[in-house]
Amino acid sequence: MSRVRVHNFGVSLDGFGTGEGQSLEAPFGHAGGRIMSWFFPTATFQAMQGQPSGSRGLDDRLASAWGPGIGAEIMGRNKFGPQRGPWPDDGWIGWWGDEPPFHTPVVVLTHHPRPPLVVGETTFTFVDASPEQALAVAREQAGGLDVRIGGGVQTVRQFLAADLIDSLHVVVTPIVLGRGERLWDGLEGLEERFEIESVASPSGVVHLLMERRR
Amino acid sequence: MSRVRVHNFGVSLDGFGTGEGQSLEAPFGHAGGRIMSWFFPTATFQAMQGQPSGSRGLDDRLASAWGPGIGAEIMGRNKFGPQRGPWPDDGWIGWWGDEPPFHTPVVVLTHHPRPPLVVGETTFTFVDASPEQALAVAREQAGGLDVRIGGGVQTVRQFLAADLIDSLHVVVTPIVLGRGERLWDGLEGLEERFEIESVASPSGVVHLLMERRR
Repeated sequence: MSRVRVHNFGVSLDGFGTGEGQSLEAPFGHAGGRIMSWFFPTATFQAMQGQPSGSRGLDDRLASAWGPGIGAEIMGRNKFGPQRGPWPDDGWIGWWGDEPPFHTPVVVLTHHPRPPLVVGETTFTFVDASPEQALAVAREQAGGLDVRIGGGVQTVRQFLAADLIDSLHVVVTPIVLGRGERLWDGLEGLEERFEIESVASPSGVVHLLMERRR
Repeated sequence: MSRVRVHNFGVSLDGFGTGEGQSLEAPFGHAGGRIMSWFFPTATFQAMQGQPSGSRGLDDRLASAWGPGIGAEIMGRNKFGPQRGPWPDDGWIGWWGDEPPFHTPVVVLTHHPRPPLVVGETTFTFVDASPEQALAVAREQAGGLDVRIGGGVQTVRQFLAADLIDSLHVVVTPIVLGRGERLWDGLEGLEERFEIESVASPSGVVHLLMERRR
């Protein structure tokens, strides 16, 4: 059975997955790059930038698991772009340039459906759907492989609340953000549904590895 | 110079230091014993119960640091007891019975001062004071030794906000509480004032060791 996975999802010590004031210039709001700064030095991220360098330790070993076995991604509209409301005719193709790193179909959750968009090897499909419905669409596109929930915060939280996530990798960075969107809100008792293991990295972050209880 | 320290302060994954609905029967509200369950098996806690048994691994090594070098504790009224408002004449002497585990003077922050209370080797002094003032009182009683901020959540947060804490040991338990009192609220940017190291324990908790930057 194809599984539903979340990888490399960064949060602050106080549980924020993004800061306040998200915009084109600041996709993570006042958090800037701090929530994902653990990720940038990894070989996994460097490869996405076309760089052959990067760290190969624990952070990279865990980060690199984001791709293998994945057949489709689901993301919230806020991860796709900074626009809100009806889509403007602005030629926006996502944050990732001509060749997005996904290389699989991507389902974008939005209240404003529009025709599919092909960028490089990635086709974005826009659906106004519940988590269950979106997952059905993504599973059809994934060809039997796993589906990744790519974020942002609201999307991951919705899928967790709907009990659709099998595997969740959260990375806690030791900063206190103070404001933004909280990952854990509304998820009281989540630990009853997951086996949780914590691994502290020499880089200073803590990896939370959560697997659905059998 | 005498230092100000916090030890063994438990929080949930979502940052709550206590649950909702605190009462005589439920000092941590709906959290029950879950926030401190890592602590109970340790030799440090077992010794407080007069038991010679208990674990001796990482959790205990870190937990046992709470006593040595401490000359006085400051606690909030909510840690002393479940009463609110003016003190009733109910003979309450704290949660700890005839011989509290502190063995040092204890300063209790309250808006309702009352005469000192001697219980076993511990003298409780009740002051209506700012964190700075309370610290001055505790330092006088500590005879040159360190002062421990014993909790609860509000008290630790107040002392952190006033930048009076030198050393902070927080223990993150992998549960999502959902409601209660949050430790990190109002402390945006705290990491700029502290060196932070994280240690995952085989027991499943993560110890955050925070020391004021020099």
